[in-house]
Amino acid sequence: MRIARFSHGETVSFGAVGGEPDDLSVVPLDGHPFGQLTPAGMPVKLSEVRLLAPVLPSKVVAIGRNYADHAKEMGGDVPEVPVVFLKPSTSVVGPGEAIRYPEISNEVSYEAELAVVIGRLCRQVPVEKVPEVVLGYTCANDVTARDLQRAEAQWGRAKGFDTFCPLGPWVVTDVDPADLRVTCTVDGEVRQDGRTSQMVRSVAELVAHVSEAMTLLPGDVILTGTPAGVGPLRPGDSVTVEIEGIGSLTNEVVSRG
Amino acid sequence: MRIARFSHGETVSFGAVGGEPDDLSVVPLDGHPFGQLTPAGMPVKLSEVRLLAPVLPSKVVAIGRNYADHAKEMGGDVPEVPVVFLKPSTSVVGPGEAIRYPEISNEVSYEAELAVVIGRLCRQVPVEKVPEVVLGYTCANDVTARDLQRAEAQWGRAKGFDTFCPLGPWVVTDVDPADLRVTCTVDGEVRQDGRTSQMVRSVAELVAHVSEAMTLLPGDVILTGTPAGVGPLRPGDSVTVEIEGIGSLTNEVVSRG
Repeated sequence: MRIARFSHGETVSFGAVGGEPDDLSVVPLDGHPFGQLTPAGMPVKLSEVRLLAPVLPSKVVAIGRNYADHAKEMGGDVPEVPVVFLKPSTSVVGPGEAIRYPEISNEVSYEAELAVVIGRLCRQVPVEKVPEVVLGYTCANDVTARDLQRAEAQWGRAKGFDTFCPLGPWVVTDVDPADLRVTCTVDGEVRQDGRTSQMVRSVAELVAHVSEAMTLLPGDVILTGTPAGVGPLRPGDSVTVEIEGIGSLTNEVVSRG
Repeated sequence: MRIARFSHGETVSFGAVGGEPDDLSVVPLDGHPFGQLTPAGMPVKLSEVRLLAPVLPSKVVAIGRNYADHAKEMGGDVPEVPVVFLKPSTSVVGPGEAIRYPEISNEVSYEAELAVVIGRLCRQVPVEKVPEVVLGYTCANDVTARDLQRAEAQWGRAKGFDTFCPLGPWVVTDVDPADLRVTCTVDGEVRQDGRTSQMVRSVAELVAHVSEAMTLLPGDVILTGTPAGVGPLRPGDSVTVEIEGIGSLTNEVVSRG
């Protein structure tokens, strides 16, 4: 199932997306998608709604250098222990929302990533029980001010700007994350092209590792790292993260102004 | 004014604390403390309520190495750019709540810090306007698994465990943060004893710096770094952060079990 969050008129709802690829519609759901899913309205054509970030995470936990070829292009090896950092909830935007290019950076980069959406409150989850706490998967762009990242020992600011965490287009609940193609395209040109099977640590290992320290809440998001090919964005660029079996997430880059 | 958050019977409220030091009481406030403050009930003796974390931050933004003597004891210089990282909201606890010692660490440390509580949604706040966006100040303990911090390039996990961000006892709205004594006491022994005047960057500089990247929301918290003297905690310890003009925050350390 594909669970979206959308606005239609003055109403914001979660909804289940279905139909033919060229004629998708969304059925509104009663309340939130973290329990029983109950339809609560007539289907609406997807072209008539505005998709929003599919969840509003209380926290976004991100993993650095989880693809060996990306660790190499960043000038390092795969870390012995996963690199774990947080992006603020204020950085989250949805499909079609602008990525605002900060005045204080001259090198903003895309990073296409598979995002895990947590479905249940949980902590200290063993690897084998991770599937029970995951609602599904969506696309993410871990946008990064690379020049600030190099200058600052911790990445709270470089990866924490408003609009630096596009998520979407929806959460897919029935996809196996083990071997999905992940691409990033800028103005139609493919810049990143990897597979989740190249991850150093699997989705289950990462969720277990993070939840060893912190309680995860429904809607929390874990970003699983980016493959090789990161590079600069410029105002005016259109950047698309696409993941096989999930969908595509496109955002325009605009000057922060 | 001292603004607390407390539970009394089955009710959780914000409230204004007043009275003689040995006979404090709290007057419940209508709603939240981020707008007009309206009393909404009779005073209750502080001894009859349970103080909670004075705010529920959407994010806790923390600053590393903002006291020169602490930077030195950590084996480094004062950073050229402030070190900015995030602690998850799930790490926040209140006065009297346990700090749970994780099984996967053998070196958990206290870090006494002045905490800034944001009062208004804001971003890109100039230094001179920072006082307008600050609700007040409280005490914080930036509890850290030092062994994990050394082993992991980013501090998301080492400083992100559940219970690793005690806050309290209340938010003081009318204190000047420029030169306050900050102490940390473990089982009655003073371990840290600094003054906020020793900060490398002032409160106003830090809030401006963080808000240059990210929108701050009412109730968000900025931790301003810790003075020298950090050291280990053990299960069974009682740790108190005290800040002149604000109050004291005590938590027991217990095995996570």
